[in-house]
Amino acid sequence: MEAGERIERALELAVQRTEADNAPPKLRGAIRHGVFPGGARVRPRLTLAVAQACGDDMPGMAEAAAAAIELLHCASLVHDDLPIFDDADTRRGRPSVHAIYSVPVALLAGDALIVLAFETLARAGAEAPSRLVPLISTIGRAVGAPYGITAGQAWESEINPPAEQYRCAKTGALFVAATTCGAIAAGADPTPWRKLGHRLGEAYQVADDLLDAVSSADLHGKPVGRDLALGRPNAVAELGLTGAVERLEMLIREAVDAVPPSKGEDELRELVRLQALRLAPKRLLQSAA
Amino acid sequence: MEAGERIERALELAVQRTEADNAPPKLRGAIRHGVFPGGARVRPRLTLAVAQACGDDMPGMAEAAAAAIELLHCASLVHDDLPIFDDADTRRGRPSVHAIYSVPVALLAGDALIVLAFETLARAGAEAPSRLVPLISTIGRAVGAPYGITAGQAWESEINPPAEQYRCAKTGALFVAATTCGAIAAGADPTPWRKLGHRLGEAYQVADDLLDAVSSADLHGKPVGRDLALGRPNAVAELGLTGAVERLEMLIREAVDAVPPSKGEDELRELVRLQALRLAPKRLLQSAA
Repeated sequence: MEAGERIERALELAVQRTEADNAPPKLRGAIRHGVFPGGARVRPRLTLAVAQACGDDMPGMAEAAAAAIELLHCASLVHDDLPIFDDADTRRGRPSVHAIYSVPVALLAGDALIVLAFETLARAGAEAPSRLVPLISTIGRAVGAPYGITAGQAWESEINPPAEQYRCAKTGALFVAATTCGAIAAGADPTPWRKLGHRLGEAYQVADDLLDAVSSADLHGKPVGRDLALGRPNAVAELGLTGAVERLEMLIREAVDAVPPSKGEDELRELVRLQALRLAPKRLLQSAA
Repeated sequence: MEAGERIERALELAVQRTEADNAPPKLRGAIRHGVFPGGARVRPRLTLAVAQACGDDMPGMAEAAAAAIELLHCASLVHDDLPIFDDADTRRGRPSVHAIYSVPVALLAGDALIVLAFETLARAGAEAPSRLVPLISTIGRAVGAPYGITAGQAWESEINPPAEQYRCAKTGALFVAATTCGAIAAGADPTPWRKLGHRLGEAYQVADDLLDAVSSADLHGKPVGRDLALGRPNAVAELGLTGAVERLEMLIREAVDAVPPSKGEDELRELVRLQALRLAPKRLLQSAA
């Protein structure tokens, strides 16, 4: 089965479990709306690709790790879009969860998605409980405090947040979890896969800053110019437009080079390059190339 | 070490992990404020008591389960107090988390506490990974959708929520997790401990309804009369004051009777009775007794 299909199937199975036995209808709708249809599913694709490069001896474990990471990413988007944060009425070109289901229900849907991610890991973990421990620790670190998404988001409530730490927590940590958990799920050493996750996380953040600075809301699928308006650390503000584009291109090259020697490493490099390019505003990369 | 000390130490160790390496100061403060000083710690006390009754062969596992359940309870209080839900400026007689640290930071602190609960389980689970799977599944079910706290809370956004299902999800499920996880953490069968959790959960809900209806905000430590004002299912509205007090007394007796034959069962029955009575507005029980 193709990676995209494996991811959607794993997410569908997870979400269906929240819909059993007369679940509260709005919460049910909100959870589904927060997960489907997805974006590029960049993080879970990375997880499965790394698992494959490491032998993928327990496909169910790799799929659970991929799904858990994507569910947590979706949870962060649902909470991030709320009026108290980005106040985004649209996401992926559609109304955001709270715009349809109300702010309270969107908050609860985000909470439920966080819980669902760990339940999904535990369900698959019955097959190999010893892999469950490092998977939960790695993923927990990437979304909790002080190193993960919630901390990254919380830096936005501080004056002059440390730029590197902010970016790492808000975006980088989950990319590192995406690559390293692919290895852990396949019973391999995660260490060689950290750098790939780091570089992609940084690339993603710079790409997002570029999009935020130059896209129209139409292209981006969500309101733009927020970071600048809110005074958050932003690569375009720091490096200028050309500087940010150059930095993005360098990070993509470094990410490609960071793929360690492994089964099918050439295909994996190509996947990394393609996924990384998907992040970038094409118009800018072409003009800079 | 006494149960209360074991709980506070386990919570302290967990919270300290979120405070490492220059964590965002407001988030750090909000997480700590959401956990300390605690209330009666009824749920983790139950977990440890049941673990003890089952032999408590892995105290670290029982403490992690107890701490995880309390962290999730605290997370639910932090989110529940937000202006979009109960809009409670006070909790346990002090300002609520958002009243001090802002609504965005309180929301993130709740998220971080949810993640921390599962990280805490995983850390202890390294000792016995096979117990980790049912612990996470049981606790996840008690806080996620469709059976747990988020679902219970989400019923409040529906018109005429099913009273039984609402109560069970909002309050009962975590009490059931508290008793059954004590058994699981000690490697025992959780089934005989379900009924105790159920009855205590129901007792707690009726007690809370009574407090909501009759207490002064001073006694309760949070604003009162919310349920009635918000049209939520409420035992006092359904049964009247005397009827609700009688129901509470019956539930406490049933809870005491639900303690299965086990090591030190008499002490455990006494603990259950005392903990249950702590829930109740004393003035009412005395006048009804």
